[in-house]
Amino acid sequence: MIEMITSSSNFIIKEVKALHRKKERWTKKSFFVEGIRAVKDCIDSNANISSLVYSDMLSSINGGKELFNELDLGKYKTNYISDKLFAEISDTEKPQGILAVVHYDLKKIDDIVRKNENFIILLDRVQDPGNMGTIIRTADAFGSNGIIVTEGCVDIFNPKTIRATMGSIFHIPIVHYKNANEAIKDLRARDITVISTSLDAKAYSFDVDFKRDFALVIGNEASGVSDEVIDDSDMLIKIPMPGKSESLNAAIASSVIMYEVLRQRLKT
Amino acid sequence: MIEMITSSSNFIIKEVKALHRKKERWTKKSFFVEGIRAVKDCIDSNANISSLVYSDMLSSINGGKELFNELDLGKYKTNYISDKLFAEISDTEKPQGILAVVHYDLKKIDDIVRKNENFIILLDRVQDPGNMGTIIRTADAFGSNGIIVTEGCVDIFNPKTIRATMGSIFHIPIVHYKNANEAIKDLRARDITVISTSLDAKAYSFDVDFKRDFALVIGNEASGVSDEVIDDSDMLIKIPMPGKSESLNAAIASSVIMYEVLRQRLKT
Repeated sequence: MIEMITSSSNFIIKEVKALHRKKERWTKKSFFVEGIRAVKDCIDSNANISSLVYSDMLSSINGGKELFNELDLGKYKTNYISDKLFAEISDTEKPQGILAVVHYDLKKIDDIVRKNENFIILLDRVQDPGNMGTIIRTADAFGSNGIIVTEGCVDIFNPKTIRATMGSIFHIPIVHYKNANEAIKDLRARDITVISTSLDAKAYSFDVDFKRDFALVIGNEASGVSDEVIDDSDMLIKIPMPGKSESLNAAIASSVIMYEVLRQRLKT
Repeated sequence: MIEMITSSSNFIIKEVKALHRKKERWTKKSFFVEGIRAVKDCIDSNANISSLVYSDMLSSINGGKELFNELDLGKYKTNYISDKLFAEISDTEKPQGILAVVHYDLKKIDDIVRKNENFIILLDRVQDPGNMGTIIRTADAFGSNGIIVTEGCVDIFNPKTIRATMGSIFHIPIVHYKNANEAIKDLRARDITVISTSLDAKAYSFDVDFKRDFALVIGNEASGVSDEVIDDSDMLIKIPMPGKSESLNAAIASSVIMYEVLRQRLKT
């Protein structure tokens, strides 16, 4: 018989609560994912799940019973908790009664650099977790070999970022640098061209040859790529905007350039 | 002297509250926009503002005093209300103490169709207000001549949609149809090719000649373009996804195709 945890001083409850804080996530190299779809993605991707947590409400959610029956409970440290406690540790307004605590290893630059056709995304002070997650999801779909995050960005292990990646956090390797210029130094040492977007650029995205090895820098939602990074870039590009709107959402702008890369590489 | 409204039974308070409901927005052909940036956009775009509403908190918001001083208060029916009432009628968690009620006229199909290079976006059951707004913003940036919305979509005048358009709702004309197939009939009668995205498509986005007159159908976030519309389309296309992620966010997918249009038209 599996016993239900009802005490908020229980170890797993304290652990998940702690993982709401960035500092704890980075110290423990762990984060949590919530909901049926996310936990499925996590299992399908062979993520390193350290615990599963579920509550009764799971069975009333569409697909919840099916997921529960598919779960190989013996494989994971599984915790059955009360709905009340689940709502307390959840990050969402409508919890689904299932979450997984995942241990995660960041990669080093040489783990992601490949022999040719490097297509790396470097995130410079991206602030919105939804944008961050969407950029990672698109980079994954479009075949990027890895993401570099820097300290000025919103935390990549933030529950909202993780949700927006729609499972891509488990597919695409992530490298962490203190700042973008250090990352650029290491990229350049590996013959990787650093390309930033800038409204002052002369070249359009379609004027650049993306068959080369490159890293694309994606900047802050409001202020774009920082001056230090612009100055340190090999190339600046912009996206044509003939209409009346003066800007694009950051996730849109980066996706459009990633598509351009793919188009050039596929359409020979 | 301007008198502060403190009664929730005041006309303007009741009016804004009513505009939280879709039915009222459509009956009154009006919606409201909130916040410094949105109200500025609204004024700069010469939108048809029927009332302005502000409260004391505006002066404590960054840029609030400047906006207030720039406002030509004599030009608009202006209402000064208490902060408490403002918070009550606001749609946001952090109200900025300024909103505008806007009268809005939908267009007819022949108002948006142009002689050549038609680039129309047809929204089929798009459900997320953020996606809807972002699609409109991108369509505006990329020079689309108009948006067609259909009844299965989330309301285009929803405050969240309006916010996500970042002012583009005032730049790009919107046409409304009961359903997508009726819109397609009218588009076809005007020699406009109807192109839908489908995972089953054989052609990639870059295989299609977008210099023609066309309307691009954007479908539901989860289920894509509806079967009735797929069957009624002239052409199906897909976006290449060589990576592990199986899907793109709906706003990303549509922006990528809109960029492809622009690229083909600009890069000759």
